[in-house]
Amino acid sequence: SELLNSTGSVAGVGVDQELISSVPSWNPTFVERNFTPSEVEYCRSQPSPPASFAARWVGKEAIFKALGVASKGAAAAMKDIEILPDPETGAPQVQLHGDAKQAAEAKKIEKVLVSLSHSETVAIAFAQASTSA
Amino acid sequence: SELLNSTGSVAGVGVDQELISSVPSWNPTFVERNFTPSEVEYCRSQPSPPASFAARWVGKEAIFKALGVASKGAAAAMKDIEILPDPETGAPQVQLHGDAKQAAEAKKIEKVLVSLSHSETVAIAFAQASTSA
Amino acid sequence: SELLNSTGSVAGVGVDQELISSVPSWNPTFVERNFTPSEVEYCRSQPSPPASFAARWVGKEAIFKALGVASKGAAAAMKDIEILPDPETGAPQVQLHGDAKQAAEAKKIEKVLVSLSHSETVAIAFAQASTSA
Repeated sequence: SELLNSTGSVAGVGVDQELISSVPSWNPTFVERNFTPSEVEYCRSQPSPPASFAARWVGKEAIFKALGVASKGAAAAMKDIEILPDPETGAPQVQLHGDAKQAAEAKKIEKVLVSLSHSETVAIAFAQASTSA
Repeated sequence: SELLNSTGSVAGVGVDQELISSVPSWNPTFVERNFTPSEVEYCRSQPSPPASFAARWVGKEAIFKALGVASKGAAAAMKDIEILPDPETGAPQVQLHGDAKQAAEAKKIEKVLVSLSHSETVAIAFAQASTSA
Repeated sequence: SELLNSTGSVAGVGVDQELISSVPSWNPTFVERNFTPSEVEYCRSQPSPPASFAARWVGKEAIFKALGVASKGAAAAMKDIEILPDPETGAPQVQLHGDAKQAAEAKKIEKVLVSLSHSETVAIAFAQASTSA
């Protein structure tokens, strides 16, 4: 029934981790290929830009897992997922573009949540994709 | 409609990690400020109290992220989130108090789930906040 | 009402981590006791079998936490949870058997999601159990 269709349901989850030192955020080509201009601006404004880039990198990988599609690694598709802080709370918000947006729409995914964390050495992220609520 | 309002939906997720050694559970002021008496009693009864305190610490941080409110770090607000084992299963259960409870109610969050894990060196937690089911 | 009963709701979450080196996948008795034949075949076909076995090990622990039942550690029950890649996407899919299946049915859990990640040294997993959607 329509009522059932309009209830939310978790479609997928994703977790990812990386050593911060293994994400080459010192490499301008890598950064330009994988992060949007707004993400770059945000990460460069943070106390530890390498940690911020790494946290977003694992966030994007976790979101690909939650969407149930294989990421293309260092290819352009990582840029299709944009993670920016909510202006009020600072909590990370997800915007999908391009192929990632199409994949989500094909699976009727309407909400993608992500949380990021980094210690001094490791960045970790968790993501969750839900159908319409 | 009322039916839609009565379906549950995940409102936020949170992940956090810390080196166990970076959570100063040997400091009585830190412990008293951030943990409830029941939490202190439980953590001190465990095989590794530093690991148990650290797991709860990251649990509280993860819950703040899932609630979408900024934590106040070492301030008193951490004590507003209480994580105690279920008497039957041992699984961690969340009770909100004070400001954390008010923040959750304002967002219509009715269920907060958390899971904790620690290795010998690192504590990690995942939390999820849902609206009414 | 029936409509309410037919909406999905997250019943539990679980996170777990281990050093890859602490999961004794070189031990045939350990492997035979804790992994199904299909899991063994899959892990042995991967670039790093120890990492794949460790990721599945923490995945099983995370699923036990999400189900809200205590795992039996190195006992046979770990084999009741089978994690195999989706043939199309490669995403890990969960099949419950035996006691784990009964525990899930008793709690009306109909969907178990899991995500796995490993770095060079650490394996981590997140699991989520939901009631019927």
